[in-house]
Amino acid sequence: MIRMYDLIEKKKHGGALSGEEIHGMVSGYVAGEIPDYQMSAMLMAIYFQGMNAQETTYLTMEMAHSGDTADLSGIKGIKVDKHSTGGVGDKTSLVIGPIAASLGVKIAKMSGRGLGHTGGTLDKLESIPGLTTSIDKERFFEIVNETGIAIIGQTGNMVPADKKLYALRDVTATVDSVPLIASSIMSKKLAAGSDAIVLDVKTGSGAFMKTLEDSIALAKEMVAIGVGAGRKCCALITDMDVPLGRAIGNAMEVREAVQTLRGEGPSDLTEVCLQLASNMLYMAGKGSVSECRALAEKVLTDGSAVDVLAAMVKAQGGDPDYIFDTSRFKPAPCRAEVLAPADGYITHIDTEGCGIASTMLGAGRAKKEDTIDYSAGIYLHKKYGDPVKKGDVLAELYASDEALFAGAEQKFLNSYTIGAQPAPEKKLVYARVTKDGVERF
Amino acid sequence: MIRMYDLIEKKKHGGALSGEEIHGMVSGYVAGEIPDYQMSAMLMAIYFQGMNAQETTYLTMEMAHSGDTADLSGIKGIKVDKHSTGGVGDKTSLVIGPIAASLGVKIAKMSGRGLGHTGGTLDKLESIPGLTTSIDKERFFEIVNETGIAIIGQTGNMVPADKKLYALRDVTATVDSVPLIASSIMSKKLAAGSDAIVLDVKTGSGAFMKTLEDSIALAKEMVAIGVGAGRKCCALITDMDVPLGRAIGNAMEVREAVQTLRGEGPSDLTEVCLQLASNMLYMAGKGSVSECRALAEKVLTDGSAVDVLAAMVKAQGGDPDYIFDTSRFKPAPCRAEVLAPADGYITHIDTEGCGIASTMLGAGRAKKEDTIDYSAGIYLHKKYGDPVKKGDVLAELYASDEALFAGAEQKFLNSYTIGAQPAPEKKLVYARVTKDGVERF
Repeated sequence: MIRMYDLIEKKKHGGALSGEEIHGMVSGYVAGEIPDYQMSAMLMAIYFQGMNAQETTYLTMEMAHSGDTADLSGIKGIKVDKHSTGGVGDKTSLVIGPIAASLGVKIAKMSGRGLGHTGGTLDKLESIPGLTTSIDKERFFEIVNETGIAIIGQTGNMVPADKKLYALRDVTATVDSVPLIASSIMSKKLAAGSDAIVLDVKTGSGAFMKTLEDSIALAKEMVAIGVGAGRKCCALITDMDVPLGRAIGNAMEVREAVQTLRGEGPSDLTEVCLQLASNMLYMAGKGSVSECRALAEKVLTDGSAVDVLAAMVKAQGGDPDYIFDTSRFKPAPCRAEVLAPADGYITHIDTEGCGIASTMLGAGRAKKEDTIDYSAGIYLHKKYGDPVKKGDVLAELYASDEALFAGAEQKFLNSYTIGAQPAPEKKLVYARVTKDGVERF
Repeated sequence: MIRMYDLIEKKKHGGALSGEEIHGMVSGYVAGEIPDYQMSAMLMAIYFQGMNAQETTYLTMEMAHSGDTADLSGIKGIKVDKHSTGGVGDKTSLVIGPIAASLGVKIAKMSGRGLGHTGGTLDKLESIPGLTTSIDKERFFEIVNETGIAIIGQTGNMVPADKKLYALRDVTATVDSVPLIASSIMSKKLAAGSDAIVLDVKTGSGAFMKTLEDSIALAKEMVAIGVGAGRKCCALITDMDVPLGRAIGNAMEVREAVQTLRGEGPSDLTEVCLQLASNMLYMAGKGSVSECRALAEKVLTDGSAVDVLAAMVKAQGGDPDYIFDTSRFKPAPCRAEVLAPADGYITHIDTEGCGIASTMLGAGRAKKEDTIDYSAGIYLHKKYGDPVKKGDVLAELYASDEALFAGAEQKFLNSYTIGAQPAPEKKLVYARVTKDGVERF
């Protein structure tokens, strides 16, 4: 029987917790035997003292096994999962899942909802009329076996330890700790049961990790956990200093994802998706990364990737005509233009600010209980690096109520910086992290 | 309205909390509006980031004013308080209070009970038949005005913030933080209302602060708070690497205190008491420290100090004959001798171990709810530095049940180290800390 007090004391002094101690701590906390006030003291001690790779792996495994885990053996083939640390305008799951599935990889994905300034894949999908993400296990397997892909909400009582811990971290200012972030994400990925995991670690003003080095550190820790748990795992560090693509908001993002699947998407989104998809295909043994890239490029032009998305939408109860004809997604009735206040170049975008502006329009949730207006959002006409003239349209805002523009317009405008000089070029993908090390681009 | 989350985040990053923020935090916590789990995260952040002098003073004042405060204006003369950070065999309050009172200083003292390896003055006093420490304010003032001294338990709802915070620190491994210790002690002293405060900061194996430098740091912080709050305040750093005196256990300690008041006490206890009492008299304006020492030495030989103790005991309902004839304190019926296992010198005493051994005999409390056997305890025949022959009596143990000896004897014996070479001499008082600085001896 562990004494939580002793564990806090040990961690406070920089000691490493043993597997047995972490087991006792996690199971005791889930069982309600360890009170929140002791766990929050421990979390703050971990924030300051960190955890070594061994401890982080123990913590991840304990959380992964704290509830139900998915057994995907009923799905034939190699199952590859993908996780993004979250961003603004990040609709990559809707693009790379169909790409990989159209090439024979199995995507049995459990996704989440949006909160704060970042969106969630489930919300985006549910902007398609009729589509449901609440699907039982048997049907989930059936859809993946038939179409190659299904994206659903979490089922059953998965990773209750992470749910309880995350809720506590959220109110005790202990979210931003690399071992805690890594173990939280990876416990969910391990419980979700895929054979391989590609991590999209965002970096920049709209990302949780604001600096490249912090993002790489997080990626290394997560890849080590994944590999340590016997999964194939790699990570790309991708830019979130600028919103990805031009659409922010659920239905608008689905439209843009479909355009991208047709080879007609914005260049930044297309490039990031091709690199992520190449790595998913590589992990599934489809060839070298460059061979996989060629395969991915092909399915964007021959229509097979978009067909897979349409099949998935249909199988999940949605109307596939929205995929074949995205003009059926109607934008919200009220529209406002945000104009450039001066001549110059876009030298900085506060991406988190853009995300908050879209939430103010109704496209996201400030609190878990909030409902979403799928048709609301922002379409960016000018992005980082673009030259602008005073009066140019920077972006169009869409909402179902004119009254929402007042705050959102200002918030959006404040997030753009217009400078006199051209801005230096930015990379879209900064690095690739594998078990063998860090490859910087 | 403060947001506790923001304050945790600020402190986590090393920021200084403002007076308004500390007010909001303490009042919100006492009112139950801030949950324990947020406060414990804050406490751990304070453990790592510390607090500056200004923050510590704000915290102390907020806690001091979180409940009732004592108004001692009904007591004539200069009121001097004393606080010890706690030790084993520490019966100084029973000696220096009567010394100072016999010389015209007013001692209106609220004391505490023992817990863990350290004893408490209230428990020691209550080993005198009939004596009560539960006395209302009017009678308390009356006794102090008549006899010069009264020692009672805390009355009313004093420093509720400290009570609640201390209970939380105790279970979240956040006790050992200098600003938290200093503010906890000083909030109680400030609320207790005396004009001057002498702090006895113990250092060594039986003390909370194990090293001299940590003890000095704590003393400096407490003196700064006291002076900042407009009180006279100084501290002595005294040895607790060895139990003080030879008696450990409540009635046994009262006997030893009385012997000391008669000028017949152990030399270490006598010396520490003379130095503490000199500083109390000095703070009350009775002359220079050395003049005050001469006064204190005099009242130990002319019987006036012991008469004051007897008068206080009588006024608090106790039988003063126990003070005039300490043989009336009967030791516990079962007695065991601990013998030296080898020839040599006592080179180290694990003082905390001795305190725990006395608790195992029934003289202390492991938990708050435990009852105390006033007659149990340990009498030390050999102390640090003494030469011993194998078979010499190191100590006598007293208990009301033979069965208690088994564990206590072993615990006690393990706390003594017998070496081949004589041990270096130890100081009794290491330093004096005043608002002007640190004077090392």
